[in-house]
This record gives sequence, structure tokens and C-alpha cells, in this order.
Amino acid sequence: MTVENINILNEYLTIFPELSSRDQKQIIDGSSFHKYKKGEQIYNVTRTCNGIMIVKSGQLRTYMLSDEGKEITLYRLLPGDVCVMTSSCLFNNLDIEIHILVEKPTEVIIIPYQILDSMRKENSMVDRFLLDIISQRFSEVMWVMEQVVFSPMLKRVAECLVNHWSLADSDVVRITHGEIANDLGTAREVVTRLLDYLQNDNVIKQERGKITILDPLKLQTLYK
Amino acid sequence: MTVENINILNEYLTIFPELSSRDQKQIIDGSSFHKYKKGEQIYNVTRTCNGIMIVKSGQLRTYMLSDEGKEITLYRLLPGDVCVMTSSCLFNNLDIEIHILVEKPTEVIIIPYQILDSMRKENSMVDRFLLDIISQRFSEVMWVMEQVVFSPMLKRVAECLVNHWSLADSDVVRITHGEIANDLGTAREVVTRLLDYLQNDNVIKQERGKITILDPLKLQTLYK
Repeated sequence: MTVENINILNEYLTIFPELSSRDQKQIIDGSSFHKYKKGEQIYNVTRTCNGIMIVKSGQLRTYMLSDEGKEITLYRLLPGDVCVMTSSCLFNNLDIEIHILVEKPTEVIIIPYQILDSMRKENSMVDRFLLDIISQRFSEVMWVMEQVVFSPMLKRVAECLVNHWSLADSDVVRITHGEIANDLGTAREVVTRLLDYLQNDNVIKQERGKITILDPLKLQTLYK
Repeated sequence: MTVENINILNEYLTIFPELSSRDQKQIIDGSSFHKYKKGEQIYNVTRTCNGIMIVKSGQLRTYMLSDEGKEITLYRLLPGDVCVMTSSCLFNNLDIEIHILVEKPTEVIIIPYQILDSMRKENSMVDRFLLDIISQRFSEVMWVMEQVVFSPMLKRVAECLVNHWSLADSDVVRITHGEIANDLGTAREVVTRLLDYLQNDNVIKQERGKITILDPLKLQTLYK
């Protein structure tokens, strides 16, 4: 493992600096580095149990998928985020099927679950760490559920646009109506109608495959 | 604490038999016993942090509530179940607002969070235990989300009836259309229409405030 990646472990794996040198060495020797291309489908949680995944760079989208191919985005993983859903065998009762899509070229470090499993017996920090992350994901998913079940669709479209806008480098969000519809688990026509409404209101400007955010503040007031 | 309640701790709190006598004594001395009446609203997670709750007898319903008063049932707590959502301060990142309604007269034992918090440093079993329970709840909520977002309403009504039927002592389920609608987060009229459909199909028989399940097997095939 390169010095750069060891620094990533030290910075993003919050328990790492507190571990013994022996445990740190075990993680450094056992972990692996991976690169994923945009558009790759890197994970279906129920299929395998690799280990926890630390995002070094890039952007991943986690989502639920129905039998009919309908999607609901759960949360995005950005540099510094740790994904424990790729390590479901560390959790006795975790029975969740999520999918992960690579949205930007992504680099990750994977720590095999066996390493953490062997450490947890002697070191209560490991379970505490897993508990903190799973609680955070649980909270994020509950928040999404609230939006999906309770929140009117216009609010959700507005919030989706602001989220993409805050991740973009400019005021131009490169996204199609179909992608927003997938993101929100609704029909493309519903999204088109709401985007037209926002365009008429001079909040956004639509062009093929991209949306320019003209009034991000107004967009935010729609859901706050 | 009575011998009966100590036996409940020993049976339902899976880590209890493995704790040291000192830790067991701390739990026995610090825990409290509570009775709740049917219809009581016993908890709003964001309001307080009491401690984990062990259900000795009865039945509790956990649910999400929208600003407009719409409800979605998350899971039910039955004798032997442990609720950790009443102890959110044990989790760093848990930011979830759920409500709990008493559906049958219920007895619980509450272990104050301070006791578990002081034990977790020396005893990795505590975090492992919390991790197992939170993983289970997370999985249950994800399952509900799948039903809510992806599953057609007839399936959901059928499943709801079977769940109530399996908890009832006879084939008669005492529930109103409004209660089913609340349970599923939909409108009463939608439920009425689907129940009429099931009655026409001789699967159920409706009377004021109760529904007789005539064909539970057929009801099950509707969602399996």
C-alpha cells in the first residue's frame, strides 16, 4: 500500500489512529485499492460480503431497485465516506439489498471484513465505529423515506436539483429528466411537468441533457 | 426488582447471562418497570433519551408521522423485543423521529442509557448487542420502504390483514378501514375499495369495526 493510501486510512478511518501498531499493520497489509469507472455497477449487497469500503475520490450513488426496475436513491458516498453495506456479514441481522452505481470515476480502499471481525473481540472501538456508521445510514434512509412517502413531488424535485447543483462545479447540472425521475422513483412525465413549471418561474433553464440553476435560493425555499 | 422481572432480563436481554455479577447487579438495581394502557402514546424518540426498553408483555406499534398527520407503521414490538430507539443518545449519529403507540396493555422494563454507556467501554458485548438490534430495525424499515414505494396497494392491504390475523386469537380482526389506511399511509377510500374487492372475492367478510378472514391462504398468495 502506498504512503498516500496509508494517509487516507489515517484520515478517513476515524478509529485508525487509535489502533495498536499491530492492528494498523494488519489493516495496511490486508487492504486493497480499487478504481471504478463512471457507470459501473459495483455492488449488490446481498451477493457478496467483501469488506468495508473507504471512498478516496469520486462519487457513488446507493439505491434500492424494485422488481420492475424502479429506483430510489438512498444516499451518495463522497470522498471520506465509509460504506459498511459492502460488509453485511459483520452485522448479524442486516438483511438489506442495496445497489451502488459509480457516478464519477472513483477510487476506494477495501478492508476485508475478516480483519475487522478478528479485531472486534479484543477492541470495542470496532463495533462502536460500525454502530456510528450504520446509525448514520439508517437516519439517512429514514429521511429519504419521509421524503418519498410524505413530501409533495415539487419539493423533492427542487431538493434534488439543489443537491446536484451543490455537487457540480458550475450552475449547470448535467442531468436528464429520466435520471431525476429514477432518482426520485417517479415517472419521467411527472418530472418534466414540474421542471417546466420551474422554468416558467425563471428558477431554472432547461437544455438538452442539462439544467442551469438560475435561482438556487428560490429553489431552496421550495423545500425548506 | 421482582424475581419475575429478573428472569425476564435473563431471558430477553441476550447479553445479560454473559455479564459479570457486578454488571448484572447494576442493571437490576438501575432498571425500572412500567405499565402502559392501550391507546397511550409512550414515546417520541427525539424528545427524550430514557434507555433501552424490553417488552415483557403486550404490543407496541412504531410509526413515522408526517406534518399533515399521515402515518406509516414501521414495525411492531412484541414480548421479548428490545427497543433501542428510546435510547438514541447511545448512538452518535442516530437522528430518527419515530412514535410508539400502545396497541395492547403493555409491560416493559427500561434500562437507563447511562448504565449501558458506562459498561460499553469495558465490555464490547454491549455495542455488539446494540449493533445487532439496530441492524434488525434498519432491515425492517428498509423492507417497509420497499412495500411503500414499490408494492401495489392491494398486496399491501392483503399483507396487513394477514399480519393482524396472525396476531389475533381468532379469524376475526378488529380493525377499521381508517386504521388500515393509517397503517399503510394511504387514504381510507383506497382501503375501502380494496376491502370491498376482497369481500366480493369471498376472501374476507366485513362488519362494523371488524373483518373476518375467510380465506387466509388466498390472502397470502396475493402478496407472495
